[in-house]
Amino acid sequence: MALFDALLELADDHLVLGHRVSEWCGHAPMLEEDLAMPNMALDLIGTARNLYAYAGEVEGKGRSEDDLAYLRDERAYRNLLLVERPNEDFAHTMLRQLYFAAFMHPFWQAALNSPDETVRGIAGKAVKEMAYHIRHAGEWVVRLGDGTEDSARRMKDAVEALSIYVDELFEEGAGDPALPSRAALRGAFDKTIAQIFAEAGLEGIEVSYPQTGGRAGRHGEALGHLLAEMQSVHRAHPGATW
Amino acid sequence: MALFDALLELADDHLVLGHRVSEWCGHAPMLEEDLAMPNMALDLIGTARNLYAYAGEVEGKGRSEDDLAYLRDERAYRNLLLVERPNEDFAHTMLRQLYFAAFMHPFWQAALNSPDETVRGIAGKAVKEMAYHIRHAGEWVVRLGDGTEDSARRMKDAVEALSIYVDELFEEGAGDPALPSRAALRGAFDKTIAQIFAEAGLEGIEVSYPQTGGRAGRHGEALGHLLAEMQSVHRAHPGATW
Repeated sequence: MALFDALLELADDHLVLGHRVSEWCGHAPMLEEDLAMPNMALDLIGTARNLYAYAGEVEGKGRSEDDLAYLRDERAYRNLLLVERPNEDFAHTMLRQLYFAAFMHPFWQAALNSPDETVRGIAGKAVKEMAYHIRHAGEWVVRLGDGTEDSARRMKDAVEALSIYVDELFEEGAGDPALPSRAALRGAFDKTIAQIFAEAGLEGIEVSYPQTGGRAGRHGEALGHLLAEMQSVHRAHPGATW
Repeated sequence: MALFDALLELADDHLVLGHRVSEWCGHAPMLEEDLAMPNMALDLIGTARNLYAYAGEVEGKGRSEDDLAYLRDERAYRNLLLVERPNEDFAHTMLRQLYFAAFMHPFWQAALNSPDETVRGIAGKAVKEMAYHIRHAGEWVVRLGDGTEDSARRMKDAVEALSIYVDELFEEGAGDPALPSRAALRGAFDKTIAQIFAEAGLEGIEVSYPQTGGRAGRHGEALGHLLAEMQSVHRAHPGATW
């Protein structure tokens, strides 16, 4: 079931990051971002929903999108470590979004040529959304990196904290011919990031000790808290609407 | 400044309700609602933003949308009591949304003929959104009211708790010729609600003691908590982005 596993990995990435971004709902520092943040969360959760639904169909055991999203335990989640990292401040949140979108944009672009029609359909919607996320998050990374002394320091801290999770984006994971090779996307990712970091004055920050293990279910403490919160309503009232 | 005051009342209604709905972000009981709820919140906050921006322009004192949204005290808020009511459960949340949308839909419809071009522009977008909110919330009210014994009881509780805030919707408030008369919309509102309540089996619930005072800044305890949360990030970092 390589396709099922590959879809699930991807769905978990989107659900967990979507949940993280949605934690900003109603807490953004300005009305403009109180619109932009939930919009990005909706893009991610919408894609997660499509991927879970298709994964359930591929598996053929009658599991619904909600079963897959809410009724698995922490170690069964296959998401990247990057997407479970806490929001911290605006700099961390926007850099995390940029890293993810700078990877997913070429991923979905390649997926437009997938032999799988459903994958092509999901890619067609997602590729446009990821272009917007790169633009929006990228603008913030430049604005903060090239901003005040305080904002530049925070941006630099975010690069140091999050860049160790970048390598994991390119691990092949379950892999399936219906989805693009991840390793092949390194060039496109590096180009996007280099361009934005140059504008933001963020070049030359040394990065070490890449962290991996998310695809194998070895998650940080942060994911447990996130899942507890995310799953609580559904689990308290299985199948109900309270 | 009747127009400024009238726009502010309306903006406050949308911002406060938008914030309430956004409290569901990431806590909805199913993926489908994890998309629908933030979508409704975005509609409301988007309209609030347009109204605050126009109010600031009309006032002409250089106050931005963020100044008006985040930098006033509780008693300066002119929102209806209905919109500040807590989410409680799904039944309360959906009924509150239905009451608001069943009023705002004919309001924006009438505003399409406003002599004020900016108001017409805001109305053109909002009238479609409110039609969707009536449909979505209305479907839930029927589904719960006509559902299990438990869901029907919760729906009935919600009607008893929230219908006392309905009369206030029709108070004229500041009033301005650029905006429709509110009292004239009672017929359209009653018709929408009667139709949905009939389907939901919610007729004949007695309602008493209408509550008003929101337009005069006399709010319930709930608003103070909501504002404290909503304004905290902006106030902690005025003009900044953290």
